[in-house]
Amino acid sequence: MVCLFRAVWGLMNSPVIIPSDPKELIDLACSGNRAALARLISKIEHRNQDTEKLVELLYPLTGNAQVWGITGPPGAGKSTTVDRLITHLRAQGKKVAVVAVDPSSPFSGGAILGDRIRMQEHSGDNDVYIRSLGTRGRHGGLSHSTKEVVLAMDAAKFDIILVETAGVGQTELDILKLAQTVMVILVPESGDSIQMMKAGLMEIADLFVLNKADRPEADKLMRELTMMVGLNDHDEHSWMIPVCKTEANRDVGVQELLQVVASHQEWLKKSGKLEEKTKDFLKEEVVDILVAELKKSLDSILKTDGGKELLDQLYRKEIAPYQAAHLLAGRD
Amino acid sequence: MVCLFRAVWGLMNSPVIIPSDPKELIDLACSGNRAALARLISKIEHRNQDTEKLVELLYPLTGNAQVWGITGPPGAGKSTTVDRLITHLRAQGKKVAVVAVDPSSPFSGGAILGDRIRMQEHSGDNDVYIRSLGTRGRHGGLSHSTKEVVLAMDAAKFDIILVETAGVGQTELDILKLAQTVMVILVPESGDSIQMMKAGLMEIADLFVLNKADRPEADKLMRELTMMVGLNDHDEHSWMIPVCKTEANRDVGVQELLQVVASHQEWLKKSGKLEEKTKDFLKEEVVDILVAELKKSLDSILKTDGGKELLDQLYRKEIAPYQAAHLLAGRD
Repeated sequence: MVCLFRAVWGLMNSPVIIPSDPKELIDLACSGNRAALARLISKIEHRNQDTEKLVELLYPLTGNAQVWGITGPPGAGKSTTVDRLITHLRAQGKKVAVVAVDPSSPFSGGAILGDRIRMQEHSGDNDVYIRSLGTRGRHGGLSHSTKEVVLAMDAAKFDIILVETAGVGQTELDILKLAQTVMVILVPESGDSIQMMKAGLMEIADLFVLNKADRPEADKLMRELTMMVGLNDHDEHSWMIPVCKTEANRDVGVQELLQVVASHQEWLKKSGKLEEKTKDFLKEEVVDILVAELKKSLDSILKTDGGKELLDQLYRKEIAPYQAAHLLAGRD
Repeated sequence: MVCLFRAVWGLMNSPVIIPSDPKELIDLACSGNRAALARLISKIEHRNQDTEKLVELLYPLTGNAQVWGITGPPGAGKSTTVDRLITHLRAQGKKVAVVAVDPSSPFSGGAILGDRIRMQEHSGDNDVYIRSLGTRGRHGGLSHSTKEVVLAMDAAKFDIILVETAGVGQTELDILKLAQTVMVILVPESGDSIQMMKAGLMEIADLFVLNKADRPEADKLMRELTMMVGLNDHDEHSWMIPVCKTEANRDVGVQELLQVVASHQEWLKKSGKLEEKTKDFLKEEVVDILVAELKKSLDSILKTDGGKELLDQLYRKEIAPYQAAHLLAGRD
């Protein structure tokens, strides 16, 4: 009786024990265990003393996934498009992961309930993994965390990783630099948002998606986008940014969109641009690591009595900002 | 005859020579010379070897201006409100400077021509100075430059400095940390944008402005805002975030808005919050300086043969990102 109780108790409380050892955690996450992957991503996201070790172990396992960026103003149909892309990619037998760093995304809990319920369609599918990353109080660090979360998903053998951001603001655009193919989704009424996004838009878009293309005003935006794309410098070796028309809610044009993404991926490989993009990404990762370490150590120093006294002197204008900075860094 | 020609030639070509010496440039800018101020701000914005010297000289001259932040989605009437605020503040005899870091702002050239023409009203006024800061390719550095431009305007004896940003995206919200009083301008149709901005909104708003308050849907937003504000933690010593109703295009509610800003400024001083905010701002400035210096030196190292070889090793997965970072920093 006691034995039986113990056995049941044991089963109830340790279905699979999630290891805390970095190597074991990664092995389990990469074997397809979702709870281990969730724990791994949380550890990366929350950054503790294990983060470095985890990234070191993950890095050699990466490099197989395609990373696609998806951005656009709220209401453009990003989540509907992501939803459709998942369905099509699953039909092709691909494993798909989604990282939502968009406060208005249903994945990160920002949008109306209906959207969130619709996404449940994929929730029983073990080869679809959806994760949202908080944006509160992250400052520059969000882009850094997102990169490392993508490494974990890559190592966990997802074929396609979709990174969704709101597409306004420099931080959001910076995040998209980790993507190989960036699609910018717009709807006929996005006129204002285009205005707003224009600055960074042409730099990051590999293709435009004109969603809700059945609306009467769609032609106007189509003309504007085609003109904008045409103004971009290009020669015969460069990628001509295409404009794809979709009606994501009726699944119109999504298959064609996937073909365009595939041809962009092919162009990336053939042109040597993929290697260049990957190296740029690695360069930023290295810089991000050192900036994060600098900020952390400055934060500690500024909390000491000496640090506080330095800030007080600065506040009283006895010293100036650059002087304070150099004193802090021990260079004066 | 030759003498007269020379005199006229001299007058035409050197009305006032803008000095390149940092100290002389600052003296001239602070004496009210607009061309010198423009040159000074450009030097700060473009960051060269003089920037440090300029900031060191400017800093002791600062601390007199009030810095107000103005944010909100495109179409909320930010520029109309800024325009009205300038008119009212000028009537009170205040000198007003505007820094626009909003790609959709007419000040930074993003919006329709009509807006820009309307702003010309203040263009003949020597006590109004409007400057836009580019957002392209700035990444984290924009917030840093903006802070230093505000220092220059403060030293140049402007009483009120208005900093306008688009209010979406983390970088844009970060910029507003330099403001003492932040007003978030919304219109009845901003529902979506609120959703989008929600994450960072309550952290930065000192007051909400409900513009176009005569529209029928305004009551709904008023209720939502009042509820949102009420959810915020507060006790008797804290600032209760007010919601001001305006119709900026008809100059309705702008005078009242100014009174609310004045009472916030008073609260800041009495509560000790002004000192706290200023110290936080200085802390970030010091960190920004060291981060910028680190990035600059990493950038040079990564361009050397050794730096390139390190990136290649990382690309070939012979080393991992943290290891590469520490090798780069000379710590391994």
